[in-house]
Amino acid sequence: MAQGLNQLPDYSWPNGYRAAVIFSIDVDAESPLQWAQRGKAVKTLGEMEQRRFGPRRGLARLVDLLAEFEAMGSFYVPGAVMEAYPWIVPGLLEIGHEVGLHGYYHEAMQTLDNAEFDDVMARSLMRFTQQGGTTPVGFRSPSWELAPHQIARIIRPEISYDSSLMGFDHPYRIEGLTEIPVHWSIDDAIFYRFFGGGRDTSPPTSPGALLDAWKWEFDSVVATRGLFMITVHPWMSGRAGRIEMLRQMFKHIREHKDVWWTTAADVARWHDSQHSNGQFDVVNTPVKTKF
Amino acid sequence: MAQGLNQLPDYSWPNGYRAAVIFSIDVDAESPLQWAQRGKAVKTLGEMEQRRFGPRRGLARLVDLLAEFEAMGSFYVPGAVMEAYPWIVPGLLEIGHEVGLHGYYHEAMQTLDNAEFDDVMARSLMRFTQQGGTTPVGFRSPSWELAPHQIARIIRPEISYDSSLMGFDHPYRIEGLTEIPVHWSIDDAIFYRFFGGGRDTSPPTSPGALLDAWKWEFDSVVATRGLFMITVHPWMSGRAGRIEMLRQMFKHIREHKDVWWTTAADVARWHDSQHSNGQFDVVNTPVKTKF
Amino acid sequence: MAQGLNQLPDYSWPNGYRAAVIFSIDVDAESPLQWAQRGKAVKTLGEMEQRRFGPRRGLARLVDLLAEFEAMGSFYVPGAVMEAYPWIVPGLLEIGHEVGLHGYYHEAMQTLDNAEFDDVMARSLMRFTQQGGTTPVGFRSPSWELAPHQIARIIRPEISYDSSLMGFDHPYRIEGLTEIPVHWSIDDAIFYRFFGGGRDTSPPTSPGALLDAWKWEFDSVVATRGLFMITVHPWMSGRAGRIEMLRQMFKHIREHKDVWWTTAADVARWHDSQHSNGQFDVVNTPVKTKF
Amino acid sequence: MAQGLNQLPDYSWPNGYRAAVIFSIDVDAESPLQWAQRGKAVKTLGEMEQRRFGPRRGLARLVDLLAEFEAMGSFYVPGAVMEAYPWIVPGLLEIGHEVGLHGYYHEAMQTLDNAEFDDVMARSLMRFTQQGGTTPVGFRSPSWELAPHQIARIIRPEISYDSSLMGFDHPYRIEGLTEIPVHWSIDDAIFYRFFGGGRDTSPPTSPGALLDAWKWEFDSVVATRGLFMITVHPWMSGRAGRIEMLRQMFKHIREHKDVWWTTAADVARWHDSQHSNGQFDVVNTPVKTKF
Repeated sequence: MAQGLNQLPDYSWPNGYRAAVIFSIDVDAESPLQWAQRGKAVKTLGEMEQRRFGPRRGLARLVDLLAEFEAMGSFYVPGAVMEAYPWIVPGLLEIGHEVGLHGYYHEAMQTLDNAEFDDVMARSLMRFTQQGGTTPVGFRSPSWELAPHQIARIIRPEISYDSSLMGFDHPYRIEGLTEIPVHWSIDDAIFYRFFGGGRDTSPPTSPGALLDAWKWEFDSVVATRGLFMITVHPWMSGRAGRIEMLRQMFKHIREHKDVWWTTAADVARWHDSQHSNGQFDVVNTPVKTKF
Repeated sequence: MAQGLNQLPDYSWPNGYRAAVIFSIDVDAESPLQWAQRGKAVKTLGEMEQRRFGPRRGLARLVDLLAEFEAMGSFYVPGAVMEAYPWIVPGLLEIGHEVGLHGYYHEAMQTLDNAEFDDVMARSLMRFTQQGGTTPVGFRSPSWELAPHQIARIIRPEISYDSSLMGFDHPYRIEGLTEIPVHWSIDDAIFYRFFGGGRDTSPPTSPGALLDAWKWEFDSVVATRGLFMITVHPWMSGRAGRIEMLRQMFKHIREHKDVWWTTAADVARWHDSQHSNGQFDVVNTPVKTKF
Repeated sequence: MAQGLNQLPDYSWPNGYRAAVIFSIDVDAESPLQWAQRGKAVKTLGEMEQRRFGPRRGLARLVDLLAEFEAMGSFYVPGAVMEAYPWIVPGLLEIGHEVGLHGYYHEAMQTLDNAEFDDVMARSLMRFTQQGGTTPVGFRSPSWELAPHQIARIIRPEISYDSSLMGFDHPYRIEGLTEIPVHWSIDDAIFYRFFGGGRDTSPPTSPGALLDAWKWEFDSVVATRGLFMITVHPWMSGRAGRIEMLRQMFKHIREHKDVWWTTAADVARWHDSQHSNGQFDVVNTPVKTKF
Repeated sequence: MAQGLNQLPDYSWPNGYRAAVIFSIDVDAESPLQWAQRGKAVKTLGEMEQRRFGPRRGLARLVDLLAEFEAMGSFYVPGAVMEAYPWIVPGLLEIGHEVGLHGYYHEAMQTLDNAEFDDVMARSLMRFTQQGGTTPVGFRSPSWELAPHQIARIIRPEISYDSSLMGFDHPYRIEGLTEIPVHWSIDDAIFYRFFGGGRDTSPPTSPGALLDAWKWEFDSVVATRGLFMITVHPWMSGRAGRIEMLRQMFKHIREHKDVWWTTAADVARWHDSQHSNGQFDVVNTPVKTKF
């Protein structure tokens, strides 16, 4: 990728679409708590029950909402969630949604050594294959963090893209790995998450205020021909008021006929077939700090 | 409870009501500070006086507001508050409000061992009975947290429900304990609480902005036939501007004739009599983290 | 003070006024940083310069704004600020504003032992008297915190009220000390303060949003016949956009002809002359936590 | 500078302008992370990629936006960013923008000893000169913090102003150094910055809400004849929704014909030529805390 003060060209989409939308759902349930408490007894039933609202109600509501708009989502499911709720992956695949990997216990991947990293990938892939009868195409790193050298370990025959980074607001390739990027500003968790005990210090954003923010963001991304990648979590966005917020958001999206609403897997396929000329390829230049 | 990607059926309410509203009041006063400072002299008169606004003004204003709307509330009172303000429990019961238990010193219950847990329950129950001349029916765990094995210790002849968890947005049963659930998004404390000294870092939400958020939440909960469980604290929501916010909120609720505004005890009775078929029963599946 | 679930009567004001407004100004400048860094060299010029905007521009703007509305303010000035800016106290007194004590180095008073506490009071009083040629009538504790036993040490011939606590939203008396109460919701600092280096984590509230919040608060306090005690700091509220917010707020207040806009000293005199029947007297009941 | 309760006179601007606007851009990219992680391997590719959005897309979008409004910006570039992206400084200078120094690794300057401080200045100046073929005129301290004694070390033949402090809302001189001041309320970073891993706890402000806040601020600064110094970062404000916010803001500014939109270098020249009478000169009075 050459670069200068001149803008890179806009990204291009199929069939004359101006922009793309992906509705992605991280089905975390209890897994981040399992990781945080590994080796210790979980003492916080309150947090666990709050998280379990996801598989009990939130997930089905999100699936129903997608059906209401005749849209497909990209779901990322940790291995431990597949283990605890074995109906999730087969159920989603049957409807036609995309399902990808998301760690086993929602690990902080960048803290793992290579053997641990590979083990997490292998175990979550194996469970996916057992339950889904197929292989996934995408991987999303828990908490959207990775160590630089782990890119090479994500690349494997079964995985054709990652969706964890923010280096562009449209697909790109980093060190040979196709990246379908995310962004905090359209992630529900940082606006809605609230756990007691002093962990969270900002109260949840109201759905109405977040709707205004996301509409602004969507309109701007469409104007710049980018990718609008929403990320939600069933235990948070599955709550009644937030489902209604998403319904209003989806109506707003559907008013734009020139926007491609699809899955991350489709977008990755598009990128790999049409944007392999290196224009949107980047390398992870090592940070050379001399002291 | 069987589960899959199909929605569980909607919850059902008596007399054709679409949804239920409970206005719950946690009468904490100084008790959380007593717990935090146990064994040490309290040096922060500022915090104590801020909390004492509750029994001095806030509680009576909330009681008057409920009278204005001819509604009954569910009050949860720690034993230490009963001890310091012995007129609260008899006064509330005389009006017809529900009063339940809420720890003795607003303990972090999940940190107590079994003997301590039982002692807190026994002492707060004894004081309630002495002052109220009756037994409570409900328990709410301070800070809405519990250890999983403590469910079994809440179940006792006097207590027929807990109201501390967030596993559904309507009543359910967990390990045999009827649960009348709460949620942070409609708790006043996380929006209004402010103590100095660097403890709280987000300024209080304005009542007008919170009114918009709660109306959105209420409308959505009604649409999905759920339970709208407001929780307030007299030392926070008893302030003039927040009372006015609640007045506007109550007017909004009263415009919905098809909503059942009642106490948590009534809702627990409804659940126990009509929803004992196991449909909304859950077990606390142990979290199996293998490392 | 007897108490029960019946409301205490409303507070009463002179001349048929429905409520009172005090505009109070804590002229802190660099003093909190002097306290925080005591004994160490101050390395943060950025923080110092941000604070010095107060005496350079902010204070005069606030004084001009009060003149625009023909109103008097209650200013609380730490001894170290009198020392560094010896024109402040005489200048304010000459205009007719009230000036009260506010510690010497904006100390965390509750952490001082009795000798230190008395020394802070004596030194700030002496400097005030030297510069102002008179004695103050009011004391405001820095950061609105005090140890319970310090009430007795505030009471002295020169001081007739404290203004640091939140036990009512109208004047009261605690352990014999007249209290003109404050509240966080109408303090500028918790909405506007921002220091870098990771200390503050919430960005400043916009003046327009805070104006809406304070109008709501004012209207509600008037409706309940209380005291509306605004607190601002020249280095924060002296900024152009916040001065404009206060101008809009003052216009809103002036539209209410039945509200008494005066100083804390006047309100304390009113309370002492008309409300000495014990109705609004409280004792600081010791917190008895048995463990 | 004499001072009292009388306002200092308003600041005056050339050609009858009522106020001035500077649009400043801190081109930090990965440099703050390089400083934070010095000597350690960077494990957080997510943070790096988020920051790299700046040189990849954000910077060019900001440059295009300035062209759209035919305005020049003041860019501050750390030496490490010049090293990693050698096209930035020449590209900006060719268009006619101002470019100034900003540390080498975005150091916390106040923590450096004198030799380290001088080394940072010398190395960043040398790289600037090599790439730009000229010398800069301005310096902005990273994170807007400095130790008091470092003022004397900023003053050198090549540097004619600093832009890091908040002691006025118009230009001034501190210890002989011309200061073109900044303010947090119109800095994008404290509203937009979000890193995961528990570092940031407030979610990003929506562009629409921030636009309202900045319009309020701009109108008020114009009314008081001050300097409106916006600061943005390409990796944050270069995102599509925030570019649109700036476009709306710029339209609002352009509606004011009596406002001078220029660079910090121009403003410094104006100050040095017209305001050398000492009226806006300050000294850094040492903080004398006696304990």
